Amino acid sequence: MTTFEFPFEQLPAILRGPRVERRRVLIGGSALWGTILEEGGAAGRLRLDDGRIVDPAGLAHLPPVAPSKIIAVHIAYRSRSIETRNKPQPTDTPTYFTKPPSALNGHLGQILKPADVRYLNYESEYAIVIGRTCKNVTPDEAWEVIGGFCCALDMGLQDFRDTDQGSMLRVKGADTMLPIGPGIVRGVNLFEQTLRTYRNGRVVQEARIGEESIWGPHYLIADIARHITLEAGDVILTGTPCHSRSIEPGDEIECEITGVGRLKCSVVETPIPRASPLGVGHAPTDSPEVRRVALGFDERVAEHLKANYRAAARGER
Amino acid sequence: MTTFEFPFEQLPAILRGPRVERRRVLIGGSALWGTILEEGGAAGRLRLDDGRIVDPAGLAHLPPVAPSKIIAVHIAYRSRSIETRNKPQPTDTPTYFTKPPSALNGHLGQILKPADVRYLNYESEYAIVIGRTCKNVTPDEAWEVIGGFCCALDMGLQDFRDTDQGSMLRVKGADTMLPIGPGIVRGVNLFEQTLRTYRNGRVVQEARIGEESIWGPHYLIADIARHITLEAGDVILTGTPCHSRSIEPGDEIECEITGVGRLKCSVVETPIPRASPLGVGHAPTDSPEVRRVALGFDERVAEHLKANYRAAARGER
Amino acid sequence: MTTFEFPFEQLPAILRGPRVERRRVLIGGSALWGTILEEGGAAGRLRLDDGRIVDPAGLAHLPPVAPSKIIAVHIAYRSRSIETRNKPQPTDTPTYFTKPPSALNGHLGQILKPADVRYLNYESEYAIVIGRTCKNVTPDEAWEVIGGFCCALDMGLQDFRDTDQGSMLRVKGADTMLPIGPGIVRGVNLFEQTLRTYRNGRVVQEARIGEESIWGPHYLIADIARHITLEAGDVILTGTPCHSRSIEPGDEIECEITGVGRLKCSVVETPIPRASPLGVGHAPTDSPEVRRVALGFDERVAEHLKANYRAAARGER
Amino acid sequence: MTTFEFPFEQLPAILRGPRVERRRVLIGGSALWGTILEEGGAAGRLRLDDGRIVDPAGLAHLPPVAPSKIIAVHIAYRSRSIETRNKPQPTDTPTYFTKPPSALNGHLGQILKPADVRYLNYESEYAIVIGRTCKNVTPDEAWEVIGGFCCALDMGLQDFRDTDQGSMLRVKGADTMLPIGPGIVRGVNLFEQTLRTYRNGRVVQEARIGEESIWGPHYLIADIARHITLEAGDVILTGTPCHSRSIEPGDEIECEITGVGRLKCSVVETPIPRASPLGVGHAPTDSPEVRRVALGFDERVAEHLKANYRAAARGER
Repeated sequence: MTTFEFPFEQLPAILRGPRVERRRVLIGGSALWGTILEEGGAAGRLRLDDGRIVDPAGLAHLPPVAPSKIIAVHIAYRSRSIETRNKPQPTDTPTYFTKPPSALNGHLGQILKPADVRYLNYESEYAIVIGRTCKNVTPDEAWEVIGGFCCALDMGLQDFRDTDQGSMLRVKGADTMLPIGPGIVRGVNLFEQTLRTYRNGRVVQEARIGEESIWGPHYLIADIARHITLEAGDVILTGTPCHSRSIEPGDEIECEITGVGRLKCSVVETPIPRASPLGVGHAPTDSPEVRRVALGFDERVAEHLKANYRAAARGER
Repeated sequence: MTTFEFPFEQLPAILRGPRVERRRVLIGGSALWGTILEEGGAAGRLRLDDGRIVDPAGLAHLPPVAPSKIIAVHIAYRSRSIETRNKPQPTDTPTYFTKPPSALNGHLGQILKPADVRYLNYESEYAIVIGRTCKNVTPDEAWEVIGGFCCALDMGLQDFRDTDQGSMLRVKGADTMLPIGPGIVRGVNLFEQTLRTYRNGRVVQEARIGEESIWGPHYLIADIARHITLEAGDVILTGTPCHSRSIEPGDEIECEITGVGRLKCSVVETPIPRASPLGVGHAPTDSPEVRRVALGFDERVAEHLKANYRAAARGER
Repeated sequence: MTTFEFPFEQLPAILRGPRVERRRVLIGGSALWGTILEEGGAAGRLRLDDGRIVDPAGLAHLPPVAPSKIIAVHIAYRSRSIETRNKPQPTDTPTYFTKPPSALNGHLGQILKPADVRYLNYESEYAIVIGRTCKNVTPDEAWEVIGGFCCALDMGLQDFRDTDQGSMLRVKGADTMLPIGPGIVRGVNLFEQTLRTYRNGRVVQEARIGEESIWGPHYLIADIARHITLEAGDVILTGTPCHSRSIEPGDEIECEITGVGRLKCSVVETPIPRASPLGVGHAPTDSPEVRRVALGFDERVAEHLKANYRAAARGER
Repeated sequence: MTTFEFPFEQLPAILRGPRVERRRVLIGGSALWGTILEEGGAAGRLRLDDGRIVDPAGLAHLPPVAPSKIIAVHIAYRSRSIETRNKPQPTDTPTYFTKPPSALNGHLGQILKPADVRYLNYESEYAIVIGRTCKNVTPDEAWEVIGGFCCALDMGLQDFRDTDQGSMLRVKGADTMLPIGPGIVRGVNLFEQTLRTYRNGRVVQEARIGEESIWGPHYLIADIARHITLEAGDVILTGTPCHSRSIEPGDEIECEITGVGRLKCSVVETPIPRASPLGVGHAPTDSPEVRRVALGFDERVAEHLKANYRAAARGER
C-alpha cells in the first residue's frame, strides 16, 4: 500500500506557490481577517482586509477555521510509533479519534489545566483544512479538496487516559485543547518543511514532515472519506512525532512548521470543576499507563530504535 | 455516588407537561417546521408553522437538531453491561465517544451499508438535546439546560471494531449512522417511559428507562460539562440496553420511546468505496471480537444474569 | 467605469471546463451529496457520494448552499431597467437588498403563498456562491473567490411592497421565497448561457446573460466586498430580466440557465398567519404601486423601448 | 391595534428575576464564556465557566450571539418618529431592514470608518435574542421564545443613504456596524429600564423603554414570524430614540441599558477600499438627504413636537 510518491511528478496546486496566509486577529472586541504580506519591506506584516497594515506579533488571534468536525490521527510519525510501540510503522493503516469544535483555541490563547489534573501533554501537528465538501475520493483526487494547512497543538489531559475506552474524549476533547493557527496557509510544499515544538523557547519535538510522516494528507482524506463526508472547513490533525511530554502552568508552548507559521500558547491553571467534588464522573488518575504516556515511554529502547529507524523504514517501503 | 433520585421531589420543568413536539418535515424540496397537535380530533397530526395541518405519517423528516458535537455514552444500561461484561454496572462512571454531525440522518431515511461491510448493528437510545450553552454545572443545575429529547439509532459498522483504538470513528461515525427524531420533545417524564427497538416490526430491544438506565441526563451533562462546553443544539446519546444485533439490507429498524416518538429507517447496500480497492485504509474485518459484539456476547451467561439483575441492581443502589 | 470585457483574454478558471455539478438530494429522510455524470451513457444521472448511480429527475433536493448571508441586486438587466424605469441602465452602479437564509428552498419544493396575499411574483436569476472568505478585492481578484453558480428564483410577496421602506424584507424575505439549485455548478462559461423562466411549461422570461446583464459577477463581488466580508457559502443573486409577473397556487415555476440547470417549484396556498387577525403588523395591500410591479409596468412603453434597447445599450458602452 | 399592556398582569418569565448575564470574553486568543456574579462582595465580577473569577472591565468581548439573521426596526420610538417625520407614531405597524451577520462586533471593539466616508452615525438599541425556533405565533406566545436581551449599537455609514433604495445594506450592513453585548441578559424587566448613548462620556440619547418605545418585543416577534421563521440565536434590533448623530475617528461611543449593561466601542479610520478608485460601485455622497439624516432633522420642529408628544400619543392609543 503506497502513500505518496516524493518528489511528485507534478506538485499539487495546494503545495505550489504563491504562498497565501490568512489570519483572523482580534483588535479589541473586533475579529478581523487579514493576509500576511509576502514581499518587500513590509513582508511579514498583516494587511487587514480593511486595508490597514499592522504588526501581527502582539495580536491575539481567533482560530482561522470553523470546522463541523475535527478528526485526528493517533500515530503517523515513525519516531512516535517507535516511542510508543517500538515499531517503525504503527499499523498498516492510520487510526483516528475526534476532538469537538469546543476544544478550539487561538494563537496566544490560554491552555486550561484544571487543578486536579497532573499531566497536560503537548503534541505539535500540522492540520489539514478541507476546502470543499467531499466523500468517496481517491488519494489523487483528494489534493483538490484541501483548502490549506495550519499549525496545531493537540493538547491532552493525560490523567483521563484510563477512561473513555480509547476515544480520548476527556483527554483530548476538553476546552482549549486545540490551539490552531496563527493563520491558514496555502501554496507551501509541506513535504519540505520541518515541524518543531518549543517549550519555553527550547526545542522539544522536531521532525522533517516529508521524511518522517507515514501518510500524506491526500491519503488521510481518501481514507476517512471512504465512509465520512468531509465538509468545507473540517480539520484533520495529522499526528505528532516522538517526545510528547507533560508541561506545567506558566509554561509557554509553541508549534512551528517552517513555511507555515509559529503558534504559541501558555498554560494556566483553573479551579477543580464544581461537579467533581460531588462525585460526578471519572476522577483524574495517576496510573502507570497514564505516567507512561505522559512522561515518556521506555526511553532507552526508543532511542536505540530511532537511531536505526530510517534505514529500517526504507527497507520496508 | 448517586445519580438521580426517583421519584423526584419536584419534577424538573423539562419533564413536566404540557408535552410539545417539534418536527422538521420535507415536502418536496422544502424543509418545514411544525408542531404535533396534542389534543382533540386532530391529535397526532402535524400543524406546520405555515398553518397547514398534515398527516406526518408518510412524510420524510430532517433531523430536528443541528449539533456542533454529538457525544455518546458507551454503556449506560445494566442489561447492556451484563451482556458485554457480565457486570450489572459497567464502571462507577460513564465513558464516552463521539459521532460527527455528518452521521446525522432523518426519520424514514436510509442507513447505508457498504457492500464490503458485514455487520451493521442497531442500538436504540434516547438523545438529550442541549438548549443553552453551559459548562461547569452541577447535576441539579443541569436540568435547566436541557432543550428536549429525541429517539435515536446509534448505528455501527462493526467490521471496523478492530481499528481506531476504541474511538469507534469508523464504526459509529460513518454517514447515515445517526437517525434521530422524528421530533424533538419536551414536557414528558422520560423516567416513566419504555424504550424499544423493532426489527421488521418485531421487538428486539426493550428497557424501562427509569429503572434500567444507570445515569440520568442531568448527571451525564454535569459530567461532560466539567471539561467541555456544551452548546445549544448539542446532542448526548445515552446508551442502549442489551441485544444490539446485526441487521441486513432491506431490513426496517425502529427506535420507539413511549411518549417521545417512533423513529424508522431502512438499510440499503451501497458500493465499496473507491479508495478501498486501491489499498487505502483499514479493511473491514471479521475477527472473533467483531463477531462477538455484532452477533451477541456470551448469550447463556447474559441470559442467566439478566434474569437476576433487577434484584442485584436494587441491592446495589 | 467598465464592468467586464467580453470575450475575455483568458477565461477565469471558474468559467472554464470541465463542468462539475454537485447536488444534495433527499432519499427518504436522508440528505445525500452527489455529482452529475457528464459523459457516456449515464450522462445526466447522479452519482451519489456513496457510489450509487440514480436518476435525479424525481428526487427532491435540498439547497446546495448554506449561506451566512444572501445579497441580491435590485436591477441588473437592461430589459428590466427599461421595464421598470424606461431606462436601459438603472443607475451607474448596482443597488442591493438582502434575503434571510430562512427563505431558502430546494428543487421541487413548495413556494408558500398565504391566503391573504394576492401577488406572488417570480424572478429568475443566476446565483453566485462564494467559495472563499474575502473582502476588499478588485474585480480581477474576485474571480478566484467564486465557488460556483446556481439557478435561483427570487420570489416575492408583492402585496408587502408598500411596507419596509424599500428593504423588501416581507416581499422577498418570507419563508420559501428563495428556491435555489438543483445543483451548484462550476466550469461553465456563464456569459454564453441563456436564462429562462417557465410558468407551467411556457417561457415567460428570457435573456442572454452575456449580452443583457449589466455587471459581471466579479464586479458585484468587488462592489459589495468594499465594505462587507463575503464568507464561503454566501450567495449573491444577480437580478432578473424583464417580465416578472404574478402567479397562482397550483402553478409550476421554473428557472432554467443553459449549462447550469433547471430548477422547478410549485405554488401552494397556506392559511392566514395567526397574528394577522389580531391586528399585528402591516396587512397585505393592493395599491396601484403594488399592482404596477406585480402585474407589469407600462407595457406599451416597455415593448417599444425593448425593441431598441440593444442598439441603445451598445451606444452607451 | 394594541401592543403590550403595561403593567402586565403577570410578568413574562424572561422579564422576571433572577437576573442572569452571560458573556463571552477574550483572554489572549481564547474565547471563554462566563456568568456575571450578581450578589455579595464579588458582584459585577465575571465567573468564567472554567471557575476562575475575573474583572471583566478591561477584557475585550466577542458578541454573545451567533445569529442566522439580524432584523432591525426602522423607527420604534415616538421621539425618533417626531424627529424624522414630525409624527409621534411612524406608521401603524413597524417596518424592517436587515444587517448581515458579518456586521457583528464585540464590546471594546473598533467601529471602522473608511476614509472616504464622512458620516458615521450611532443608534443605541436593545436587541432581542431568539431562544427557540418559531413561526406563526401570537404576541402572547412570543414571550416564551425570547432567549435574552443585549445592548446594541446600530451604526451606519450614512454617506450610502442615497443608494440601495431603502435596504440600507451599505449604510447599516458594513463590517463592524453592529457592536452587541457586553453580555446576553435574562430576568430583567426591560420596560422599567432606561436606554442611553454616551459619546465620549456625555449622554447624547436617552429614552425610557417602557414609556417611549411603541411596540414590545413580543409584538415585533409575532409580526416578523407571520412570514419568516425565527431561529434560535437570531437577533431583532428594536429601534433607537431621537438624536442619532454623526461621530468621528477617535470617538468613544457607548450604549447603556440600565439593568442590561453598557457596551463601548471606538471609531477608527480605515483606508479607502481598493476597488473604489477603480470606479467600482456607488461612491459615498454628501447630499442634502444624507446630511439631514446624519446631522439631525429639523430640530426646531422636533423639539416643539416632542414637548407635546406624550399627550398626543396618549390620545392616539
